[in-house]
Amino acid sequence: MQSIAPAKPRPTISDVARLAGVSPTTVSHALNDKGYVDPQTRERVKEAARTLGYRPSVRAQRLRTGEAHTIALVSSMPFEIAGGASRLGFLMEVAAVAASAALTRGLALVLVPPVMAGRLPLEQLDIDGAIVIEPTADDANVAHLQERGLAVVCLGRQPGNDVAPYVDIHSSATSELLLNHLHEQGSTKIALLIGAQARNSYIEAREAYARFCAARGMTPVIAVADESGGEDAGRDACAALLSAHPDLDGLCALVDAFAVGAVQAIAQRGKHVPDDIKIVTRYDGVRARACRPPLTAVDMHLEDMASQAVELLFAHLAGKGGARTVAPALPELVIRESSRA
Amino acid sequence: MQSIAPAKPRPTISDVARLAGVSPTTVSHALNDKGYVDPQTRERVKEAARTLGYRPSVRAQRLRTGEAHTIALVSSMPFEIAGGASRLGFLMEVAAVAASAALTRGLALVLVPPVMAGRLPLEQLDIDGAIVIEPTADDANVAHLQERGLAVVCLGRQPGNDVAPYVDIHSSATSELLLNHLHEQGSTKIALLIGAQARNSYIEAREAYARFCAARGMTPVIAVADESGGEDAGRDACAALLSAHPDLDGLCALVDAFAVGAVQAIAQRGKHVPDDIKIVTRYDGVRARACRPPLTAVDMHLEDMASQAVELLFAHLAGKGGARTVAPALPELVIRESSRA
Repeated sequence: MQSIAPAKPRPTISDVARLAGVSPTTVSHALNDKGYVDPQTRERVKEAARTLGYRPSVRAQRLRTGEAHTIALVSSMPFEIAGGASRLGFLMEVAAVAASAALTRGLALVLVPPVMAGRLPLEQLDIDGAIVIEPTADDANVAHLQERGLAVVCLGRQPGNDVAPYVDIHSSATSELLLNHLHEQGSTKIALLIGAQARNSYIEAREAYARFCAARGMTPVIAVADESGGEDAGRDACAALLSAHPDLDGLCALVDAFAVGAVQAIAQRGKHVPDDIKIVTRYDGVRARACRPPLTAVDMHLEDMASQAVELLFAHLAGKGGARTVAPALPELVIRESSRA
Repeated sequence: MQSIAPAKPRPTISDVARLAGVSPTTVSHALNDKGYVDPQTRERVKEAARTLGYRPSVRAQRLRTGEAHTIALVSSMPFEIAGGASRLGFLMEVAAVAASAALTRGLALVLVPPVMAGRLPLEQLDIDGAIVIEPTADDANVAHLQERGLAVVCLGRQPGNDVAPYVDIHSSATSELLLNHLHEQGSTKIALLIGAQARNSYIEAREAYARFCAARGMTPVIAVADESGGEDAGRDACAALLSAHPDLDGLCALVDAFAVGAVQAIAQRGKHVPDDIKIVTRYDGVRARACRPPLTAVDMHLEDMASQAVELLFAHLAGKGGARTVAPALPELVIRESSRA
């Protein structure tokens, strides 16, 4: 049983000044190569700093410059979707890339995962800006960050927000890709299952689905499930869909947790995926791959999205203005057993 | 093309003091419920703060208290193992849990992923402490953090470090579990493939392997590969093993990237996994599951490890002393096709 000191008393700039026989201001100038300091004095100060093991306080420097050099990555998805069983999901894939991209620009990335209940304690974070993943129209985190005057970049446009820069996550193109694929595989009665929160990806999916149905003379069938219900909510929503529309032969379940729940509901009804009903989902993560049968999904190019989000935030932090929106590579289908004809 | 202001000028404590007609010190006391402030004055100060939208500077408070309320999670594995293709690996699984555990204790977690080349720019981070994953004996990050007087908790003991608190990741027990399993499945000539860096998990694995061989009269065959070579290094090391020991029928490749490379080398030699050679690895991540055939691995209880690491760091930060070491649940085998008799 041993303990370490959480922070040994560190030498201050005054300690260095005393040892070198100069003023603290001279120490500051000498160590930061600012102002005029006699070369011999500069050497004496540096020697004193070395002797004492003095390092300038990162915190004091930041208070002076007004910069924290820290950004946060915030998930606005409920814990049931982005936390828990699918921790190795969307958020963490983005986090891995964003943290590396931030680091190469001298920014630290604070990871703010979804919490079980309540609002995120963002006010405790000493940050300069944040990337918020797929915020809803009334996202409390975005509101809080903007109220503090911090730079915010959304990964996926926030509905109703005409100011915050965002990375276009191509929700229309993704929806079209999935719906057209189901149609090409032979599905003729295709339903759309989306989440209840006001996210831009659902809004664009609804629009794409409406166009898709109109072009093919299909009757739109849309089901909405509560994201905080996770897989169970997807299962229940799909069961209700199958009762109301027993002839469904295709399902586009955008949320991966809903798609996994839907597969359960279909099996419980004694039907088979993909022979009776084909299923597709959006995020090509562990859930889609581990599902039985594995789910057709979309390569959203998350790496590209994440690094573009950091770049966009960085440009705004650097006061370079920067674009309102950037668009990563277009999504590509990853076809698996769940939708094969 | 629109831009947002990175930080709108925020009202200062002096602005509030001026509006309320009191001194900045009185504002500070009134808002923080410190010292004696006349109740009417306190109300007037709070009203002025509300009017101006004043919030105390997190940064200034932290400079005063000497605490950043931020911890870092640092991976000491090379980019080729912990970054790149297996981003959804060990580090991110630990990060997801650690970030949640930290958040519930009011700590922000900065994610410090491996970088492509060179040392991590840790000196830029304004942190109180760090969790370092499986540091090597000469880990430059641990040295830097300890030199700064910061609290460090190692996930997996650092060889030669008799001070830093650590989470026991049960490397002996894990190695024994894997070796005994291969033996039970019928392997009689089992080699050990480990990384070249001085990590405690390899040291314990060597010792467990020596005991295992001695108890069964096996001749030890140990191969060492450079972690920064990733899967290719594992493939080459396994190819060399097979040339030198054509009768090998079992391989314990602790690093998952090495195990995946080893499967390639075995196939290139025209041999079959598991019929000719059985393979097992340590971390039950995406790599092990996605490998063909899927790899037998170990459930290390990473969630338990990560939350215990945060708790241990928190105890030391809080100056409560805290234990030198904690031990999460013991590892459990996850048997897959790669080692089935």
